[in-house]
Amino acid sequence: MISKEAEQAAAALDAVRDRHPLVHNITNYVVMNNTANALLALGASPVMAHAVDEVEEMVQLAGALVLNIGTLSSAWVEAMTRAGQRAVRLGRPIVLDPVGAGATHLRTEASKLLLDEAPPSVVRGNASEIMALGGARGVVTRGVDSAHGVDEARAAADALAVANRTVVAVTGPVDYVTDGRRRAEIANGHALMGRVTGTGCMSSAITGAFCAVERDPFLAAVAALTVFGIAGELAAEGLPGPGTYAVRLIDALSSIDARQVLAMAKIRMGGAEA
Amino acid sequence: MISKEAEQAAAALDAVRDRHPLVHNITNYVVMNNTANALLALGASPVMAHAVDEVEEMVQLAGALVLNIGTLSSAWVEAMTRAGQRAVRLGRPIVLDPVGAGATHLRTEASKLLLDEAPPSVVRGNASEIMALGGARGVVTRGVDSAHGVDEARAAADALAVANRTVVAVTGPVDYVTDGRRRAEIANGHALMGRVTGTGCMSSAITGAFCAVERDPFLAAVAALTVFGIAGELAAEGLPGPGTYAVRLIDALSSIDARQVLAMAKIRMGGAEA
Amino acid sequence: MISKEAEQAAAALDAVRDRHPLVHNITNYVVMNNTANALLALGASPVMAHAVDEVEEMVQLAGALVLNIGTLSSAWVEAMTRAGQRAVRLGRPIVLDPVGAGATHLRTEASKLLLDEAPPSVVRGNASEIMALGGARGVVTRGVDSAHGVDEARAAADALAVANRTVVAVTGPVDYVTDGRRRAEIANGHALMGRVTGTGCMSSAITGAFCAVERDPFLAAVAALTVFGIAGELAAEGLPGPGTYAVRLIDALSSIDARQVLAMAKIRMGGAEA
Repeated sequence: MISKEAEQAAAALDAVRDRHPLVHNITNYVVMNNTANALLALGASPVMAHAVDEVEEMVQLAGALVLNIGTLSSAWVEAMTRAGQRAVRLGRPIVLDPVGAGATHLRTEASKLLLDEAPPSVVRGNASEIMALGGARGVVTRGVDSAHGVDEARAAADALAVANRTVVAVTGPVDYVTDGRRRAEIANGHALMGRVTGTGCMSSAITGAFCAVERDPFLAAVAALTVFGIAGELAAEGLPGPGTYAVRLIDALSSIDARQVLAMAKIRMGGAEA
Repeated sequence: MISKEAEQAAAALDAVRDRHPLVHNITNYVVMNNTANALLALGASPVMAHAVDEVEEMVQLAGALVLNIGTLSSAWVEAMTRAGQRAVRLGRPIVLDPVGAGATHLRTEASKLLLDEAPPSVVRGNASEIMALGGARGVVTRGVDSAHGVDEARAAADALAVANRTVVAVTGPVDYVTDGRRRAEIANGHALMGRVTGTGCMSSAITGAFCAVERDPFLAAVAALTVFGIAGELAAEGLPGPGTYAVRLIDALSSIDARQVLAMAKIRMGGAEA
Repeated sequence: MISKEAEQAAAALDAVRDRHPLVHNITNYVVMNNTANALLALGASPVMAHAVDEVEEMVQLAGALVLNIGTLSSAWVEAMTRAGQRAVRLGRPIVLDPVGAGATHLRTEASKLLLDEAPPSVVRGNASEIMALGGARGVVTRGVDSAHGVDEARAAADALAVANRTVVAVTGPVDYVTDGRRRAEIANGHALMGRVTGTGCMSSAITGAFCAVERDPFLAAVAALTVFGIAGELAAEGLPGPGTYAVRLIDALSSIDARQVLAMAKIRMGGAEA
């Protein structure tokens, strides 16, 4: 039987394909190219713009704003803040990707500043990043790769969601999405995704595209991670090396359709009592 | 029958292969890697350098300068201006790619500044960008993707070419190249090129490589867009997804030869009276 | 018969796979993505961070620091210096890639500054770059591609190694590695590597990963260049175009194993008397 959430994810994918939302990314240098290609393949329209002089104007044109702190410097924090504040005033959804939060003070503080000054609709991170922001004690992270499992990050994700009235999505072998009340686990995806740089960043950007077409950010995040996870499974056929896999992942984001989402979605929902 | 223009394009390709011109790019973060790979595959030698402290020295070594404003900030505008002014003094051809002109004031103003301060040999853009710079009224652009067809941009392209004594190349399903007197339409290319980020930027960089070996920038632009369009057709065999297509496009830029250019070129020339 | 050096290279590869060293890269925009993917494919864990505010904190987490000046500006020089000084204090190995040294004063001076202020364990460059830094006379470089053969750079490499008490690795068709006393030539690799942007940068980053697991930087550099060269040979099967080759190179860095290193290594050692 096809779940309501799988149907919603399939419908959201079709909406992205129909409406080609413009997604404004202020993101890191490492992933700009494959983020743009992932959004284009999915059917969205990416734009990268980071200058303090233009971000407020650019975000007005966009359906969603994605803030990714992967290669941060102070000037970029200011641009992210300004773009975020304008997005909030315009009612545009923001996705925050706190890459490396917990690894350095700059990243942790920038993430907290953006949570306060430009409240995101969705925070998408790995377990270590969410634990660092959600108040878990004694979190020791290691660069930008997670040192923790998704299960360890659940309490921090719930706390972060409630404290900031946002949706928190923790990605890993099984993704966890929460708004503090609703909870979802998504078991789609493939281990090879961890062997390609920027797949986490791509999932954040794709969440931005889904937020542009689905007003409920919880449902948008669930749909985005389901679709991306299934694309990751489709790309893994024959177990290619990580170079070939990265290429096929873009192909799969282009070819994936609602039928495949309905057939392959592995979403488990929980509620406030879960 | 093989046209004179196809012969000229084939000869220019051979000249790039023979002379390996150094192309100095001050370009956007998103496309730096695939721009470099496209130039290398074609047979040119790319260098990326943007520091105010070194651009004037670097452009002296180069056969052409490519200025691309895709991820702009004020410091980069200064570097582009300085590099451009030095290029003009040295007689080096400049290709300007006004990415997103019309979308934000920063981009429109930077493009106009560069048109004035560092007069380019060729301006290569999509229809919306050229319309924004060529004085078309009420142009509403949307990020960095064109919201207009090439035909809509012809008058603006002609006006821009005359006003700035430059060649203007508008790319799309059928490219339009004009110096205000001569006009060419190039019907090569493939729809998949629009599904890969940075193909417009690649076409500008390749135009730079051709300008380095062909003194007439109109002929250089026609040759560059013909060769790139044919490579785009060669790469599309079997209709791959956009990830695989991006890879094959680099392969095709490496394998394309004069014989294929002669056999596949679709160039239609017009004159002042056209 | 399998040489001692091939055995050492195979063992070092296994150590990278076992220990997943974190490699902190302050590198150029062009290659950030494929550098990260190369390190991930190899089994290391890459992080890119360049902000003056965080580099000292980040390098503390890392097993090695890679400084690559490919798209330099003054702010980045300061970040590289600070990160390098902290790495020296912490005993972390540094690999310096002086991209384009000799082409502009900024690059030559930045390289010399880093040699002095943040003494590297290994300097990895092409022949022209090493000649520019090693005091060869009348070196005229051309952008970032080498204008010289590796053999021409031997004396400069030796001089640079002795003057700076470092290992110098000159890459080309046959790589040359020297610490002024020991010398090695590595004949692995493939001509297609020169057709893909950033393969030199990748070799520097991979040298960083090997330095994190092998205390002797001479042996680390020999192992890194041997493994990377063999991966380059494995990727070349069927002579693909450079786009496909770049993808397969990442696949090969992931699949290469100790057995292949032992079977395929082409290392020739020399000594002080060589």
